[in-house]
Amino acid sequence: MISFRNDYGEVAHPRILERLLECAYAQNDGYGLDVHSVAAADSIRRLLGRDADIHFIPGGTQTNLLVIAACLRPFECVLTCNTGHINVHETGAIEATGHKVVTVPHVDGKLTPEGIRTMFDAHESEHMVKPRMVYLSDSTELGTVYTKTELTAIRRTCDELGLLLFLDGARLGSALCSAQNDLTLSDLAALCDLFYIGGTKNGALFGEALVIINDALKADFRYMIKNRGAMLAKGFVTGIQFEVLFEGENPLFFELAAHANSQAIKIADALMAKGYDFYATPSGSNQLFPIVTAEKMAELEQNFAFNVEKTLPDGRFAIRFVTSFATTDKMVDALIEAL
Amino acid sequence: MISFRNDYGEVAHPRILERLLECAYAQNDGYGLDVHSVAAADSIRRLLGRDADIHFIPGGTQTNLLVIAACLRPFECVLTCNTGHINVHETGAIEATGHKVVTVPHVDGKLTPEGIRTMFDAHESEHMVKPRMVYLSDSTELGTVYTKTELTAIRRTCDELGLLLFLDGARLGSALCSAQNDLTLSDLAALCDLFYIGGTKNGALFGEALVIINDALKADFRYMIKNRGAMLAKGFVTGIQFEVLFEGENPLFFELAAHANSQAIKIADALMAKGYDFYATPSGSNQLFPIVTAEKMAELEQNFAFNVEKTLPDGRFAIRFVTSFATTDKMVDALIEAL
Amino acid sequence: MISFRNDYGEVAHPRILERLLECAYAQNDGYGLDVHSVAAADSIRRLLGRDADIHFIPGGTQTNLLVIAACLRPFECVLTCNTGHINVHETGAIEATGHKVVTVPHVDGKLTPEGIRTMFDAHESEHMVKPRMVYLSDSTELGTVYTKTELTAIRRTCDELGLLLFLDGARLGSALCSAQNDLTLSDLAALCDLFYIGGTKNGALFGEALVIINDALKADFRYMIKNRGAMLAKGFVTGIQFEVLFEGENPLFFELAAHANSQAIKIADALMAKGYDFYATPSGSNQLFPIVTAEKMAELEQNFAFNVEKTLPDGRFAIRFVTSFATTDKMVDALIEAL
Amino acid sequence: MISFRNDYGEVAHPRILERLLECAYAQNDGYGLDVHSVAAADSIRRLLGRDADIHFIPGGTQTNLLVIAACLRPFECVLTCNTGHINVHETGAIEATGHKVVTVPHVDGKLTPEGIRTMFDAHESEHMVKPRMVYLSDSTELGTVYTKTELTAIRRTCDELGLLLFLDGARLGSALCSAQNDLTLSDLAALCDLFYIGGTKNGALFGEALVIINDALKADFRYMIKNRGAMLAKGFVTGIQFEVLFEGENPLFFELAAHANSQAIKIADALMAKGYDFYATPSGSNQLFPIVTAEKMAELEQNFAFNVEKTLPDGRFAIRFVTSFATTDKMVDALIEAL
Repeated sequence: MISFRNDYGEVAHPRILERLLECAYAQNDGYGLDVHSVAAADSIRRLLGRDADIHFIPGGTQTNLLVIAACLRPFECVLTCNTGHINVHETGAIEATGHKVVTVPHVDGKLTPEGIRTMFDAHESEHMVKPRMVYLSDSTELGTVYTKTELTAIRRTCDELGLLLFLDGARLGSALCSAQNDLTLSDLAALCDLFYIGGTKNGALFGEALVIINDALKADFRYMIKNRGAMLAKGFVTGIQFEVLFEGENPLFFELAAHANSQAIKIADALMAKGYDFYATPSGSNQLFPIVTAEKMAELEQNFAFNVEKTLPDGRFAIRFVTSFATTDKMVDALIEAL
Repeated sequence: MISFRNDYGEVAHPRILERLLECAYAQNDGYGLDVHSVAAADSIRRLLGRDADIHFIPGGTQTNLLVIAACLRPFECVLTCNTGHINVHETGAIEATGHKVVTVPHVDGKLTPEGIRTMFDAHESEHMVKPRMVYLSDSTELGTVYTKTELTAIRRTCDELGLLLFLDGARLGSALCSAQNDLTLSDLAALCDLFYIGGTKNGALFGEALVIINDALKADFRYMIKNRGAMLAKGFVTGIQFEVLFEGENPLFFELAAHANSQAIKIADALMAKGYDFYATPSGSNQLFPIVTAEKMAELEQNFAFNVEKTLPDGRFAIRFVTSFATTDKMVDALIEAL
Repeated sequence: MISFRNDYGEVAHPRILERLLECAYAQNDGYGLDVHSVAAADSIRRLLGRDADIHFIPGGTQTNLLVIAACLRPFECVLTCNTGHINVHETGAIEATGHKVVTVPHVDGKLTPEGIRTMFDAHESEHMVKPRMVYLSDSTELGTVYTKTELTAIRRTCDELGLLLFLDGARLGSALCSAQNDLTLSDLAALCDLFYIGGTKNGALFGEALVIINDALKADFRYMIKNRGAMLAKGFVTGIQFEVLFEGENPLFFELAAHANSQAIKIADALMAKGYDFYATPSGSNQLFPIVTAEKMAELEQNFAFNVEKTLPDGRFAIRFVTSFATTDKMVDALIEAL
Repeated sequence: MISFRNDYGEVAHPRILERLLECAYAQNDGYGLDVHSVAAADSIRRLLGRDADIHFIPGGTQTNLLVIAACLRPFECVLTCNTGHINVHETGAIEATGHKVVTVPHVDGKLTPEGIRTMFDAHESEHMVKPRMVYLSDSTELGTVYTKTELTAIRRTCDELGLLLFLDGARLGSALCSAQNDLTLSDLAALCDLFYIGGTKNGALFGEALVIINDALKADFRYMIKNRGAMLAKGFVTGIQFEVLFEGENPLFFELAAHANSQAIKIADALMAKGYDFYATPSGSNQLFPIVTAEKMAELEQNFAFNVEKTLPDGRFAIRFVTSFATTDKMVDALIEAL
């Protein structure tokens, strides 16, 4: 059984594990105040081209709930598209911090300025929650990516409406390495109030690098991390991983993401050549949503693991293939063969 | 500079890291549903000698807040001693779940049946929080350990008063390997409603194994884990670590804890031989709290890192030395030399 | 200016105020443990024809948040229709207790078994919130009322799916006195796990009588009330009001609701006679949603206050007229005249 | 049986009830936006001698939890003395908003600058909650009152340490009318960031007037009120009450408080004349804490209701007598007779 189920099925890239092994017995300061965390943050800041507070958080749901709990007052809500991870796949983790998630219909997995504005306008009285933050993911839950034009337009809308912009970058590596992408880390830093760079889905054991750009959101953030149980005693374990991912001229982070993308593109090309329909437009990122018949799905399930996204009205299925840093040519070839 | 500051300063035991490296590219099921997590839980259950639900959680604060949020109704509180970790060192993480922490004066770092009963009796009306859980740590914040007699008496009090008993085992390895200890994992399973076995402070990269004994507390716990952002996508990373720690006849877990303890005992013996006073009775666990003068402290700080627990009324200082799986004879000899 | 804006615009029925005045200097036990609260609860229990715990809560939002916080575990959610009061008009009060509100499209303001089942089925994994309660209002936000057949079918669905049924009766008086209604308080007690009987919108100064039928939900509820700040020191003020509303053979509660309904029916008849369309089917309750043109609306606004529910695609407006215990014939005649 | 148990045992002063009755059928705007609430706030602002936001909240616990939830970030805590109402008598209502209450030993029921500073200094790291607000009551839980010198010193400490000062004035009327008091409402406005003026314990049916002085705390407070279920639909019911309490040259509010105090003073004088000891120094407010023997207590309990505050080490009891706007000379004489 070959799995295309997700990009967090393999342990980690060996270079990360080897580095951890080299440092096994070295003594470090605790709680993320170690030299590795500092070095990793410095590397990321160099790519941002500006100052920023950077915190390494164990997981994505945790980062999302932390940011929302830290930035919003009790009656404020976060806007996202209906497919947003915080809306459907976090078991109420955001609401557990006391905040409502208000949704807007997605367009190919993405938020639009119009969608944001419509939902903002629908919340005009003190008897309703007050919109305060826009949450979006790049790449999205449907594997699509935002262009610089799109994200700039959303930023402008946020400025106009007094909304913070928070980008969930659990799959940011894949987004930035997509052929359709024209955003850089430096652009994100200019456009977002905060965003994060996902390690878990791009070759790390775990860990997300939260980048806080907006000065007003920086104060006491470490208190907040501890308050939600997200401050690992051995913070250096995350620090070392991001140090490995971002050091040098050609950071491993982009190399791994580009590898995952290139494997996905091979599959996408094969799917298109074979005339498959798609549930969401392939974007060059590491997620694909082809549409298959029940028979084809059953056949594929003999040898491959993947998620079923949706049953379509015509009885066919939108399924999801995800590639990772560890997806080999052999796996890809086997899948293409079977399609 | 040699650090005796804590037992979470080194990355991890090499055997754990080597195993992770061996599995680097293997494909696993996500969210803790993998074969490694299952195997690790099975190994632990064998030591418990009974059935139990076992969940691997990234950190200790997270485990504490999860358990308390899962077990208590909104108006119920948890009792602990005033030195309890959840009371002083978790930045309000428990209160952030909505629950009051009510404290009882400690006796050598420990709770007593009398202390519990007194505080329970002080909460007799619906205008006050309702006590529902007793939280204690073994080993305690002062390095002391509970005996079977003590813990049995506390259990009896809990039964009588309708209280759940939750044991924080962040340093349980060290407690169980202490010369003063007469408890086994199987005893803990018989006496506690839930407890956890700490990996972070005993050679793992991170991770705590939460053991739920009380059937009434088991339902839907995985929902709860996800709800607090404590369900790692790569749950198998924790699973593999606990698999390594608990596999075989002589589990590495106990070997590492025994090592840390034996290094602490050497230091304790030296301290006693030299006539040092102690802030808390040495118990054979990996934490020591000798009392030093300001001059001595300044001298030690030249070459050693350690925490200052308290300034005493006579101007002396209670300081803390902690040993770990990685503390070498050389480090210990250097410290003894300096004392 | 005559207001048809709502049913909570007048102070209270004089009989309630006179009784309060009679008792002005009498000494009472605090916190709802007084003889008036007991008598009021007894009167209501007689109408229920069964035992139940009854608590008097100052307001509706408070009752909703209390019930949901008391009954749900942190990862559990409440299902309601998209027009539900807890979804749109409580400024995130439910989410502030940590719970997600999941919505189902309404049918004439009502929930249906199919809607409940569809949304229940969409939450099948531990990565999503777990449905645990169905919340509905009678009369609904659109003034419609549930029939016994409809509510029985919903109860059956709840039983099958393991869901609690909670009925918001902020306007229950009006619902029960509607011509379309065939439910009694005794039926509600048989069908709901908990429900409340609204005083605020039916002639009281404030106050809702929460009725808990399900034994499993009764324990320690007074702790919960206090925990949310909903336990008035002078609980007898609510007790006296409900005593007045429910004492005697022909309780004032039903008399006031019937009056409000009859005034609304006169307006509804006039609207129908004049050929107005309706946004929601008039049900004989005290809320009406006629559709008017912009010109008509502007004209009416000269002399009458009312809410605009919605702008329709054709440019017309759905407006809302609400009658109360205090709506006089003269007001009604003036409105009919103006229509 | 004559009750000296508390000052919230009688319904309300007749003048308030008569006014409500006069307005029974008048139509008002909802949610506290009515002319009565505006007039009441204006009357209070005149006494403050400065601009302030004023909100009428149904109860004291609710006001406390609202203010704390509105002003603090999730990891921030509130400091109070160990006898503070929010610490012991609110069933975890503050913690239910996510905040830790940190306590300082009281001195005659009061906080001191030294106590505040000591506890502030004990919270020096991000592993502990961050002190952000000082909460105190005037009059205190022990019936004592703050002097202008004392409160000014506390304000200075707050400024120095970056703490907000919040005064719980559930019994502020009694405090301001005490012979030992030298504070005015205008002083409180100059010294506090926010405070409230209690109606419930001074002749109203219910209701507290929250005064927000600090501009930074004013924004969106009505959202917050609604978010906690504290916005009554019929806000004008509270508005009318405070209108009656504060209108005219000699506001009823002070008249009622002065009456309660004068009745307490008579009892205090009698107690002193008879040589009773006191648990807390009588201050001229409406609470007294004499110490009685078991025999005397049993004797008094035949005809009088009162609370027992504490059993003393010598076997005697500290009991509490509270007078109210409704305490008559006859009641007082009967008690003095019995002492």
